[in-house]
Amino acid sequence: MPIITLTTDFGLDDAYAGVMKGVIASGSPDATLIDLTHAVLAQDVLGGAFVFETALPYFPPGTIHVVVVDPGVGGTRRRLAIEVNGHIFIGPDNGCLSAALPDASRGYREAGARYEARIAALPVGATAVSIESASVVSNDVSATFEGRDVFAPAAAYIANGGALLELGPPVDSMLAFPALRAPTDHGLLEGLVLHVDRFGNLITDIRGEDAGPAARFHALGRDLPFVRTYADAPGLCALVGSSGFVEVAMPNGSASLVLGAGLGDRVTARLA
Amino acid sequence: MPIITLTTDFGLDDAYAGVMKGVIASGSPDATLIDLTHAVLAQDVLGGAFVFETALPYFPPGTIHVVVVDPGVGGTRRRLAIEVNGHIFIGPDNGCLSAALPDASRGYREAGARYEARIAALPVGATAVSIESASVVSNDVSATFEGRDVFAPAAAYIANGGALLELGPPVDSMLAFPALRAPTDHGLLEGLVLHVDRFGNLITDIRGEDAGPAARFHALGRDLPFVRTYADAPGLCALVGSSGFVEVAMPNGSASLVLGAGLGDRVTARLA
Amino acid sequence: MPIITLTTDFGLDDAYAGVMKGVIASGSPDATLIDLTHAVLAQDVLGGAFVFETALPYFPPGTIHVVVVDPGVGGTRRRLAIEVNGHIFIGPDNGCLSAALPDASRGYREAGARYEARIAALPVGATAVSIESASVVSNDVSATFEGRDVFAPAAAYIANGGALLELGPPVDSMLAFPALRAPTDHGLLEGLVLHVDRFGNLITDIRGEDAGPAARFHALGRDLPFVRTYADAPGLCALVGSSGFVEVAMPNGSASLVLGAGLGDRVTARLA
Repeated sequence: MPIITLTTDFGLDDAYAGVMKGVIASGSPDATLIDLTHAVLAQDVLGGAFVFETALPYFPPGTIHVVVVDPGVGGTRRRLAIEVNGHIFIGPDNGCLSAALPDASRGYREAGARYEARIAALPVGATAVSIESASVVSNDVSATFEGRDVFAPAAAYIANGGALLELGPPVDSMLAFPALRAPTDHGLLEGLVLHVDRFGNLITDIRGEDAGPAARFHALGRDLPFVRTYADAPGLCALVGSSGFVEVAMPNGSASLVLGAGLGDRVTARLA
Repeated sequence: MPIITLTTDFGLDDAYAGVMKGVIASGSPDATLIDLTHAVLAQDVLGGAFVFETALPYFPPGTIHVVVVDPGVGGTRRRLAIEVNGHIFIGPDNGCLSAALPDASRGYREAGARYEARIAALPVGATAVSIESASVVSNDVSATFEGRDVFAPAAAYIANGGALLELGPPVDSMLAFPALRAPTDHGLLEGLVLHVDRFGNLITDIRGEDAGPAARFHALGRDLPFVRTYADAPGLCALVGSSGFVEVAMPNGSASLVLGAGLGDRVTARLA
Repeated sequence: MPIITLTTDFGLDDAYAGVMKGVIASGSPDATLIDLTHAVLAQDVLGGAFVFETALPYFPPGTIHVVVVDPGVGGTRRRLAIEVNGHIFIGPDNGCLSAALPDASRGYREAGARYEARIAALPVGATAVSIESASVVSNDVSATFEGRDVFAPAAAYIANGGALLELGPPVDSMLAFPALRAPTDHGLLEGLVLHVDRFGNLITDIRGEDAGPAARFHALGRDLPFVRTYADAPGLCALVGSSGFVEVAMPNGSASLVLGAGLGDRVTARLA
């Protein structure tokens, strides 16, 4: 039976995530449920898209991914189920499923701009539907908890071998954030902090391969040595983190606290 | 193999929940373990009972539910295992298993009163025992962690097909909170905030079907428009939440912060 | 298939733990994954070793335990896989796997001293290797996330029946903390607070059996009655907790808050 991953902003203080698992396990008892995180900041669609994108490469084809960060729940945004490269993606059409698409389909952020979800065409070979089937979207759908009432049943349906195209009419585009990749302007990589992790590391959208080993990093008035590992760092530093993105770190401390920096702050790199 | 749900106030910072799972998996390796939450406020029996009650409808018959919010651990309160409508409920006899009983058995809160656990008769067809069998309650039972030493082994025993009546002598009543349903007094629904969720929504004991679409909601000096979805709300509002209870919500914000309100505060509705 | 436990300081706000599970489930889909905790304080190796040690007795032989609290990630510390008494232990060589060793191999803390990891010989019958096999330690190993790139694949390898000795060259010693046992000096047990749990209980390294029922406990200027259960306690008290260690507790309150005490503070017991 397939793996089903869950990424939400429901937290673990309430039973919302547990209830989704109950619905999935009721419909598909042998699926393996794996929490990616339920601690996306409340209604932070970009944050959810980011954390999901960093985890996706570590799951095998055939995995079903449910991502629910859904400030528009109960409104008119579509519910999507998408198949790309053997992975299934289920969630609202607001950008949280961006990782389903290759960078080329999503386009790139421009210098000076922020990340905003925009319409992206599905790549060749992908299949997507707007979940509308009465078998999944019943009259009893809650106006506030489609994770339980729509997305979990859809995941169980697919886990049991159900056909994607039975879930609703096909669609050929979806909302997606630009590819997570800092733009370069006149030899300067203009990074943004996308995520602050538990250790206080500031994870940016600068890709390690874009920086090159001689890049000179800079954040909030501070020059940052570019090191290979925490063990090499004399203190506040930049390094390529485990997801391939450059992060600002303070070994045995919190870069976020030391710099007073957080989500959306700028980290730049002068290319050598 | 059955699903076993876990609801506790043990948190996830310690290994208490993991240890319970180790005990269950040692005894019943193929059971599917689902965390409802381990973040019930420390020793908040009513809060645990509430969150469990909202999750219960989403699990199939045959599920074993372990609920451990247990300020009286090591004292003289009984340990219960109950079978009602094909579900099994395991935990201390202090009200945290209230959801096992139908509303009629639990009675109702009166106007002006709070929720207090009181003795309730088991309904016809239910079976309950006081867990006392030496096979589960050994001499080594910890005075502080019966979740590990009593309730987890009892769950594994049932999951392996053991008979409920082998766990101890039958009982015909238990402690239960009144049914979660705000009383009506002279056309006014007198709700109480039972839970504040991660989004700052104030979840009350007012049932959506008791309010009716024309009810006029009021909390802490504020009138609240009654809407169908977050998307319909101009700001602070009341709506029927995913569990069927009316909640006070602030779309893209926190009603709890905006109102300065929390557990136990009053939310009323004037019936039309 | 075996149980695999996970103990880390990765938290649940990020997807780090979920990603490790993805790697394990990709390699060994039928393993049962159990989180002990991911909330070890960031880079608190002793804290991780403690919480893991308290959970270990509740898992059956054949269990694979992955413990990753790893401030030296990317540096030169070894990666270990150890088999002792039928359990497998996987993690960095910094003391976090201390529970794999019997007390006698670890030695004891001396009066006035703190816990520091030091070299300990493996006991007779144990097998340990330095994980270096190219099948697990590839060129792509991240300098910052070996939980994902080394320890999770090693766990999946063992779960699939792989031989420990294929993972790398054997080693005959490892870093371990002294046995968790307060020293006695002139009739005074000199305890240290090792852990503060969610309830504010101060868990010390004083073993219940070392104290004896007539011991007189003392912490931060306060005498503490020594009771059997929370239900017996008039207020702030000492009792033998569920792990066999003496803890300072405040029934229905937080001993940590009441005393203003925390990690590393002294709790002493005058033996009768």
